[in-house]
Amino acid sequence: MLTPLSDRDTLDVAGLERLIEHILAGGVHGLFILGTTGEGPSLSYRLRQELIERTCRLVKGRVPVLVGITDTAFVESVKVARWSADAGADALVVAPPYYLPEAQPELQEYISHLVPELALPLFLYNMPALTKVAFEPETVRQAMDDPRIIGLKDSSGNMTYFHRLAALLKHRPDWALLMGPEELLADAIFAGGHGGVNGGANLFPGLYVKLFEAARAGDLARVRTLHAQVMTVSERLYRVGRHSSALIKSLKCALSLLGVCNDFMAEPFQRFRELERQRVREILDELGPIDLTP
Amino acid sequence: MLTPLSDRDTLDVAGLERLIEHILAGGVHGLFILGTTGEGPSLSYRLRQELIERTCRLVKGRVPVLVGITDTAFVESVKVARWSADAGADALVVAPPYYLPEAQPELQEYISHLVPELALPLFLYNMPALTKVAFEPETVRQAMDDPRIIGLKDSSGNMTYFHRLAALLKHRPDWALLMGPEELLADAIFAGGHGGVNGGANLFPGLYVKLFEAARAGDLARVRTLHAQVMTVSERLYRVGRHSSALIKSLKCALSLLGVCNDFMAEPFQRFRELERQRVREILDELGPIDLTP
Amino acid sequence: MLTPLSDRDTLDVAGLERLIEHILAGGVHGLFILGTTGEGPSLSYRLRQELIERTCRLVKGRVPVLVGITDTAFVESVKVARWSADAGADALVVAPPYYLPEAQPELQEYISHLVPELALPLFLYNMPALTKVAFEPETVRQAMDDPRIIGLKDSSGNMTYFHRLAALLKHRPDWALLMGPEELLADAIFAGGHGGVNGGANLFPGLYVKLFEAARAGDLARVRTLHAQVMTVSERLYRVGRHSSALIKSLKCALSLLGVCNDFMAEPFQRFRELERQRVREILDELGPIDLTP
Amino acid sequence: MLTPLSDRDTLDVAGLERLIEHILAGGVHGLFILGTTGEGPSLSYRLRQELIERTCRLVKGRVPVLVGITDTAFVESVKVARWSADAGADALVVAPPYYLPEAQPELQEYISHLVPELALPLFLYNMPALTKVAFEPETVRQAMDDPRIIGLKDSSGNMTYFHRLAALLKHRPDWALLMGPEELLADAIFAGGHGGVNGGANLFPGLYVKLFEAARAGDLARVRTLHAQVMTVSERLYRVGRHSSALIKSLKCALSLLGVCNDFMAEPFQRFRELERQRVREILDELGPIDLTP
Repeated sequence: MLTPLSDRDTLDVAGLERLIEHILAGGVHGLFILGTTGEGPSLSYRLRQELIERTCRLVKGRVPVLVGITDTAFVESVKVARWSADAGADALVVAPPYYLPEAQPELQEYISHLVPELALPLFLYNMPALTKVAFEPETVRQAMDDPRIIGLKDSSGNMTYFHRLAALLKHRPDWALLMGPEELLADAIFAGGHGGVNGGANLFPGLYVKLFEAARAGDLARVRTLHAQVMTVSERLYRVGRHSSALIKSLKCALSLLGVCNDFMAEPFQRFRELERQRVREILDELGPIDLTP
Repeated sequence: MLTPLSDRDTLDVAGLERLIEHILAGGVHGLFILGTTGEGPSLSYRLRQELIERTCRLVKGRVPVLVGITDTAFVESVKVARWSADAGADALVVAPPYYLPEAQPELQEYISHLVPELALPLFLYNMPALTKVAFEPETVRQAMDDPRIIGLKDSSGNMTYFHRLAALLKHRPDWALLMGPEELLADAIFAGGHGGVNGGANLFPGLYVKLFEAARAGDLARVRTLHAQVMTVSERLYRVGRHSSALIKSLKCALSLLGVCNDFMAEPFQRFRELERQRVREILDELGPIDLTP
Repeated sequence: MLTPLSDRDTLDVAGLERLIEHILAGGVHGLFILGTTGEGPSLSYRLRQELIERTCRLVKGRVPVLVGITDTAFVESVKVARWSADAGADALVVAPPYYLPEAQPELQEYISHLVPELALPLFLYNMPALTKVAFEPETVRQAMDDPRIIGLKDSSGNMTYFHRLAALLKHRPDWALLMGPEELLADAIFAGGHGGVNGGANLFPGLYVKLFEAARAGDLARVRTLHAQVMTVSERLYRVGRHSSALIKSLKCALSLLGVCNDFMAEPFQRFRELERQRVREILDELGPIDLTP
Repeated sequence: MLTPLSDRDTLDVAGLERLIEHILAGGVHGLFILGTTGEGPSLSYRLRQELIERTCRLVKGRVPVLVGITDTAFVESVKVARWSADAGADALVVAPPYYLPEAQPELQEYISHLVPELALPLFLYNMPALTKVAFEPETVRQAMDDPRIIGLKDSSGNMTYFHRLAALLKHRPDWALLMGPEELLADAIFAGGHGGVNGGANLFPGLYVKLFEAARAGDLARVRTLHAQVMTVSERLYRVGRHSSALIKSLKCALSLLGVCNDFMAEPFQRFRELERQRVREILDELGPIDLTP
């Protein structure tokens, strides 16, 4: 979930409520806050706490709330985890600390020290492009021995890696293996994964839910139709900006045009200027009824 | 400067005092805290504040104190900057926010928003291996137009880049261009740089000060002798561990063996085990009188 | 197809014949020689010519023969292309020249100069990990306007990229979009691709053919069973060595143990030593009847 | 040395003669042909042979001629080496085979197999950005035990690596340690290196020779003046184009404007178009008397 902001350190509270209702109306099965798309690392701790509390209060248990606690500082991760448990969140998500890169034995030891400090179950978050370090399959295999670790979200975009993890699921049939990039949601389900954490679901939640269901049902024809729409969103909307931040900026911009929430971006990024905003408006017009596909 | 710790969130206060006196006795011209070697991103904000305050109090103005405020969250950087000003530090140091990478225009805008929030002059910190993003020469050139930005520390290890920045100094003769990797300290001075920020100076401060002075004096023969010792420290001591964290671990281990401070490492890293500690002990014995070179 | 060698510049002629019959018996729909797994760039031009001629003669038109002409030198690529046409091959395959990396406009111009020199239709070969440069979707789109370019093999392992290319197929319904990594063969078919170029098919050709057919038939349950075997081959066999060359070495070693062909490797690589050979023998014993799956 | 071409597979014979005389007139101490700047990997073998023979004949022993034999195919490297010996060249230069990357033990074995096949002494050529693989210091140390290997050219741009190699020279006082990037020529001499292989010396040979001599003499003031000119050439001339190929294109363009040789580029690259050519003309006018510095 995006984090609606109205200023550098101010939540867009009304926008947050509208965004949550917009997403839940699309039928999603959970909410993940304070991830990459949620600009987690860019937010002050005060604001992170406020977001956790408000989100849990607004969701009211309708779907599970997962909270990202990734941080370079162990003590701060534990603090965010505590706020999450206190607010009634359901699970935590952690990527490797992302300043100085860890070797796998260091990462394994880190996880083994972190888990006992947490009052909620934990998902691992594989995001090597941003954290420099991947959870190697051997490390995941080891993590599976700890019942407090209940799944992994893979945002590597590396489908072979995903298959390698899927082959490990026999050791923990209760694990949830989730796909990050929405372009690979269907592939992930076919590969034995359990779902996706799709940034685009902030905007078109129904599209991704339907694709998920079609893939689960093995309805290849319907998957192809829906996946083509997912690719259109990616190819058109996310290419308005040229930088790494384009996905977040374009989603926030589109939601602002739809009247859902503010498009303010946390530093070091800035919302789209008028030129790009105009492009997003045109693309939304073309995509128009995408989320209404029956 | 390393950050002496006695536990996950506890400063080694006595060790901090001994470490500062050890370093200052070597004749260094400034102290940089909360950088990479100082494990800045791994420390809780509470501990960062304590470290800033204690360091400024212990240094008592004998040399300038520079404080790293690099953070993925703008608001937290500003908070650390305020603590630094309140504690009497002399300057701040900032690397690019290091989660989602910025394009240069985004980085330029970030810096232009940050500087007005700071009560102290600012150094840029180029560290692309860890932040993913470099301060490109064009961005540095632009930053030179702001008198509140007073220098740059380059830890890229890219000597051609350093030469490119040195060629820009004509636009700001008052700027300080500093070298990160200690193996390149002498090269940096020959290239027109003004000094180095050397992790090894935690252990052998006199060695790097003497090398700096020899390079400034253009004494090539003496530079060669002293630089050979610098290379020996790097090739022997920093290669005890095999991971990115080896430099910090080996310096902390050596200082602990010398009775200066505790070798506790902030998560996600751990101090050397006994085997590596024994190796460090042997190497220290061999290097022995390195810092006493007249 | 692997290139069976009996010495640095000598084809294992009897092994080549046995290997071709072994692969064709598995039901494959084409043979690609002088690719990465075929050690193309490591072979002398004389040997490349001999391999092309012998392969075409042995295959006798039973399946199409594709020949890799990738080279840093344009003139040499054209020479290999001419030998291929003279020998009766069916198509050529070219990756970007892989020494100094090209920008996309340079790559586009290169392809536009190369095609008119070729007497056979051309496949593009996307292999950025080894060539440094990818065929960006815009470049592929442009190549589709030339009827002499008839397809692309994608060995990037980047499934999102594959989906982006699949979305372009509407512009050239006759194109063949092929997957490189065999772990992604089924994903590729589901994504609208037309087949795979699987190194493992040197050893277990039937396995990959059956997986291809199951995916084409949309038989998800059978795909899952066969894909699990593919993953087992990858996870067990290809991990015997630790370097980039492990896949080729382990396949050659296994085929040598099965009496199909020599395991001599072209420089700069060397065949497995006895220790690894013993591991491969054990793994083959365990995998045993993998190719006999009905 | 650049390779003057008048067409895809045709040497610019008159240009070659003028270029050699132009360079030798500047006082250089050797000529290295068929390297990266010489477009070695892009040239047909026939043309490589012709270039070797003509160059040796034209140089007539006035300076040593070094020939690049880097190739992905062992057999072809040996062939080029034989032509070099037959033509009267003085030494060979080899970088790691650059398609599938080698691990260090594989690279060591490769070198140990290659050297006995060569009739001339060998330089190693460290160029990891293009070959993917570096000669790690341990591998260089091992190579020093073979008297037929007589030096190394380092084009990594990594000055710390260069210092590490310089520290190994005590094991082979007769070795020549050469710097690739011309921006680091002076640094290399101060670090104990023996010279540079400077692309810019095709255009302004005297400049680099004078810088080399000033650095050898320890004349820091003169080094600073000359090095500023070197940086000006790099910052102005080599930035006319934006791609990796810009250095070669701009040098060839400038020499063509000066009437020395043709600016035809081997595929996959193309000479500058008129717009960039005009830029180069203007820059040459500004730089004008650079090579005449007394």
